[in-house]
Amino acid sequence: MTELTGKIVLGPHRYGKAENRVVRIVRDTDRHTIRDLNVSSCLRGDFDAAHLDGDQSSVLPTDTQKQTIYSYAKEKGVEFVEEYGLALARHFVDDIEPVGAARIEIEEYAWERVVVDGVGHDHTWTRKGSEVRTAAITVQGTGSERKEWVIGGLKDLVILKSTGSEFRGFLTDPYTVLEPTTDRIMATSLEARWRFAGTDVDWDETYAGIRATLCEVFATLHSKALQQTLFEMGKAALERYPVLAEIRLSAPNKHHFTYDLERFGVENANEVFHADDRPYGLIQASVLREDAPDAGIAWEPYTGAV
Amino acid sequence: MTELTGKIVLGPHRYGKAENRVVRIVRDTDRHTIRDLNVSSCLRGDFDAAHLDGDQSSVLPTDTQKQTIYSYAKEKGVEFVEEYGLALARHFVDDIEPVGAARIEIEEYAWERVVVDGVGHDHTWTRKGSEVRTAAITVQGTGSERKEWVIGGLKDLVILKSTGSEFRGFLTDPYTVLEPTTDRIMATSLEARWRFAGTDVDWDETYAGIRATLCEVFATLHSKALQQTLFEMGKAALERYPVLAEIRLSAPNKHHFTYDLERFGVENANEVFHADDRPYGLIQASVLREDAPDAGIAWEPYTGAV
Amino acid sequence: MTELTGKIVLGPHRYGKAENRVVRIVRDTDRHTIRDLNVSSCLRGDFDAAHLDGDQSSVLPTDTQKQTIYSYAKEKGVEFVEEYGLALARHFVDDIEPVGAARIEIEEYAWERVVVDGVGHDHTWTRKGSEVRTAAITVQGTGSERKEWVIGGLKDLVILKSTGSEFRGFLTDPYTVLEPTTDRIMATSLEARWRFAGTDVDWDETYAGIRATLCEVFATLHSKALQQTLFEMGKAALERYPVLAEIRLSAPNKHHFTYDLERFGVENANEVFHADDRPYGLIQASVLREDAPDAGIAWEPYTGAV
Amino acid sequence: MTELTGKIVLGPHRYGKAENRVVRIVRDTDRHTIRDLNVSSCLRGDFDAAHLDGDQSSVLPTDTQKQTIYSYAKEKGVEFVEEYGLALARHFVDDIEPVGAARIEIEEYAWERVVVDGVGHDHTWTRKGSEVRTAAITVQGTGSERKEWVIGGLKDLVILKSTGSEFRGFLTDPYTVLEPTTDRIMATSLEARWRFAGTDVDWDETYAGIRATLCEVFATLHSKALQQTLFEMGKAALERYPVLAEIRLSAPNKHHFTYDLERFGVENANEVFHADDRPYGLIQASVLREDAPDAGIAWEPYTGAV
Repeated sequence: MTELTGKIVLGPHRYGKAENRVVRIVRDTDRHTIRDLNVSSCLRGDFDAAHLDGDQSSVLPTDTQKQTIYSYAKEKGVEFVEEYGLALARHFVDDIEPVGAARIEIEEYAWERVVVDGVGHDHTWTRKGSEVRTAAITVQGTGSERKEWVIGGLKDLVILKSTGSEFRGFLTDPYTVLEPTTDRIMATSLEARWRFAGTDVDWDETYAGIRATLCEVFATLHSKALQQTLFEMGKAALERYPVLAEIRLSAPNKHHFTYDLERFGVENANEVFHADDRPYGLIQASVLREDAPDAGIAWEPYTGAV
Repeated sequence: MTELTGKIVLGPHRYGKAENRVVRIVRDTDRHTIRDLNVSSCLRGDFDAAHLDGDQSSVLPTDTQKQTIYSYAKEKGVEFVEEYGLALARHFVDDIEPVGAARIEIEEYAWERVVVDGVGHDHTWTRKGSEVRTAAITVQGTGSERKEWVIGGLKDLVILKSTGSEFRGFLTDPYTVLEPTTDRIMATSLEARWRFAGTDVDWDETYAGIRATLCEVFATLHSKALQQTLFEMGKAALERYPVLAEIRLSAPNKHHFTYDLERFGVENANEVFHADDRPYGLIQASVLREDAPDAGIAWEPYTGAV
Repeated sequence: MTELTGKIVLGPHRYGKAENRVVRIVRDTDRHTIRDLNVSSCLRGDFDAAHLDGDQSSVLPTDTQKQTIYSYAKEKGVEFVEEYGLALARHFVDDIEPVGAARIEIEEYAWERVVVDGVGHDHTWTRKGSEVRTAAITVQGTGSERKEWVIGGLKDLVILKSTGSEFRGFLTDPYTVLEPTTDRIMATSLEARWRFAGTDVDWDETYAGIRATLCEVFATLHSKALQQTLFEMGKAALERYPVLAEIRLSAPNKHHFTYDLERFGVENANEVFHADDRPYGLIQASVLREDAPDAGIAWEPYTGAV
Repeated sequence: MTELTGKIVLGPHRYGKAENRVVRIVRDTDRHTIRDLNVSSCLRGDFDAAHLDGDQSSVLPTDTQKQTIYSYAKEKGVEFVEEYGLALARHFVDDIEPVGAARIEIEEYAWERVVVDGVGHDHTWTRKGSEVRTAAITVQGTGSERKEWVIGGLKDLVILKSTGSEFRGFLTDPYTVLEPTTDRIMATSLEARWRFAGTDVDWDETYAGIRATLCEVFATLHSKALQQTLFEMGKAALERYPVLAEIRLSAPNKHHFTYDLERFGVENANEVFHADDRPYGLIQASVLREDAPDAGIAWEPYTGAV
């Protein structure tokens, strides 16, 4: 048995306040707007004494981070969640001495106006879609060492095509019993995250455009496999938005099995399917620009939600 | 201690196959349509011997019910989920001898076409909204004893208004510390179920109309309390649709607390809220027509999902 | 199309505060005890004006109910959750004028002491099991009209036997493709609820005894079907506890399919299974005493959790 | 706006079959044993053509991976989940030509025997606890390039102490309103993952010992902060098990707020708490040996579950 004898030391560590459910209403006129957010803060820095000696003198309480998150929703506003996240992250790095880097993770839930007499209502909405917009903003260092990364994204975008997808010509071994197919349902619950090359971005327009691009390619590309579809989706997003350095896609292959009805004398020409829960294929791919700037700690997750 | 000595006997019982995830694609032309369902069957009847003696000779396996559910999606189609449910329930009562009554519970998940070049795509969709359309179809007895009930509904319809809601003038006791308010966020995740007076209904049009009516009243009624809003929502639905006998509404009061920012010198005129998870108020009300036909066993739930 | 013309009126209604997460520590000595509860209150009574006119003068706020729930955890204690629930329900009926009936639903999460040097620690616990103990206490009316019902129970008790279960000799029809079996895994996530004949009960001892009885019968009865097993489980509980009037059991048949390994030349004599998610059989049965007192509104659910 | 012009290329990618729900019964004698697993496979290698051209000739279907996972549960057995995972990962790397590295992620759900007449039953169990044992096995390269890493762990271990925890002396800023405390509830839902220095390990004994060590330190250390507790927990595990190279801990601070009952004239000396859902503090720390071997790709997550 391999046994180690080296000194035991504190490794990387960080802390913050997760899942602050901030709802921001702008009511300057009778036509209100809403931003519905789940915000998490995460601080790195010199907190060794808290771990080694229980000394809290360098530890800004997570409760304080919470207060700041809610207060900044008014002080700075949340016109764009990415700007709001940048303001928070910069504050923690610049104003709280022991903090070396801060990460703000945001989930945004979309709402759409209730239609009354054909018009969107001023101050009533229903939740729109199951999908969640995400952002992860990381700020590190001060002065000439300052680095800032913004990752945008979405998750839980459930998308399905009922034809235009095949899977055949694959590698086989003694455990291979799958039949090749030239026509199947392809469905996934997409998670996509894209890293911006900078922070001077038309945030909402870019989000809408990337989402539309991903859906369009999924719809129109005749798919030989989910891998191919994901690559083409990511490539199209980068081609359309030079402000993107890279995009990462994670896609469970939500299997829809053609139900065997022949035994009952019923024809089933890809009309009736069983939507299975588990197991599922899980495909992950990234698409990059060769001149993408260094990602640093931008991709290191915190809550797992973003 | 109260002790009973009576004979121990079998009470009410039933069984079925829950949560069959049926996806039905109609592909008669290049423009496909999709119905995405979660279907449960439930049979009542003379199954005493199965319980008392383990004798299965009267028990149609739940696996057989599953096969029927999938096969009927092609044999009968699912143009309207209520008709599909009626066909299934009638089959079990009419064709399987020991069955005295059958209940079919259906959840339907909505999809919307992906837009490509401004046009909805032929065979690609994304999941639309978090809300679920529901139906519970019950068929009991044969011949002159035949009764049929259809309950339609929705759940997980998350709706919020940022003003136009107050709560004051309430009863107080020594545990009352709540401050009255004349302006608050009112939000809920609505569950509504409506019972039809018959089975000759324009199912999809009625569903869309009731949903729109519920949302409109929620939006436009100045609310003195969630109770009042629910009653007026239900009343409006019944007024607009004489085919409805009654409607039942269950609405968690999803509390949004105005965040205290004054301690930081920041004004918060109902602009920043904390969306709390638990506890929540839970309001349940029903609205009836006085000439509503008898509901029989129509409201007895099975899976709890409908 | 059937159309109704009757007057539209308010039907049954009720309201309360759901899911108050009360944790009660008794720390009179160094050896602490913990009760970890999820408590919901539900009031019925004359609240018509709140629905019809928005008049809150008879409405005790759900916030007040919350305060009472937390305060009673100290004032009355929670030595037994059923007694605590009775105290709360009696209070609402007796002390709040418009209240005609009150229901308290409780989920309790079990904890077990962390073992240190072979001994249970004084004030540290880990959560024990996935199962949840439940109680639903209903109090209705005052004086000679007073009625009280207590329902105990459990849910999410996942139990499995790897042999001693068969399913054969069942009814068949053209959709029946299931093969009979004389040896299968039988597994469920049990929900059981039992109604007491009175309120003078040794609550915790009875709970432990019923739970043990249910598990024992599941283990030792050679099962010809889940229906038979459920009936015998319920019957045994009633036989052992004369204080019970009836018991209701709901059991999803969590299917474990023997995996086909023969195609790979590997024998699988009921050794490797796929645990499927959906669909699942769902069996519901009740066992009664013939002299069971009237259940009144005891079984009418509120949150759906109990 | 920063715009990039570099060539767009495929970045890191991988794929597999997630969440195979394998249940393995050993029934060589009347006393059966059970292993209840959720197994995911993940392959890396030269799959560029599948992404760039839709060419599947190097792609072993995820369905094949599923078949292998189930078959190996019999062929190799699952006496220890880590050995089973190693066998699977080695197979994919050694026997499937395009595969450069394989990762197997496993969740294991614990069961305990039902007690009948004071004895554990031969073939009936109930699910034990909410916690999940985890393993992530990674195998990379062949021949002299071969590397193997095993990470063990647990998650969803909910642990609480009702005293012996303080939080004071922390850093303050204008947003700090938290009061220091010398006595509070400390509770978390622990996730811990530990990396082994080798693969010659007494797997089950080590798991039980680490789990016990983590719980003991949580219980017995007077805590000045969750950070301190986590570090001491990890340090104790490494001290006791020289076979460990490092341990990573992630702990949500599940806040229990002392409920304000004074306004009702009721004393509350840390006896009644509200268990809040969100937000929560989230503390993450690692403890390392200075001579820990290189971790390579061992920590790169796949499903997010491990």
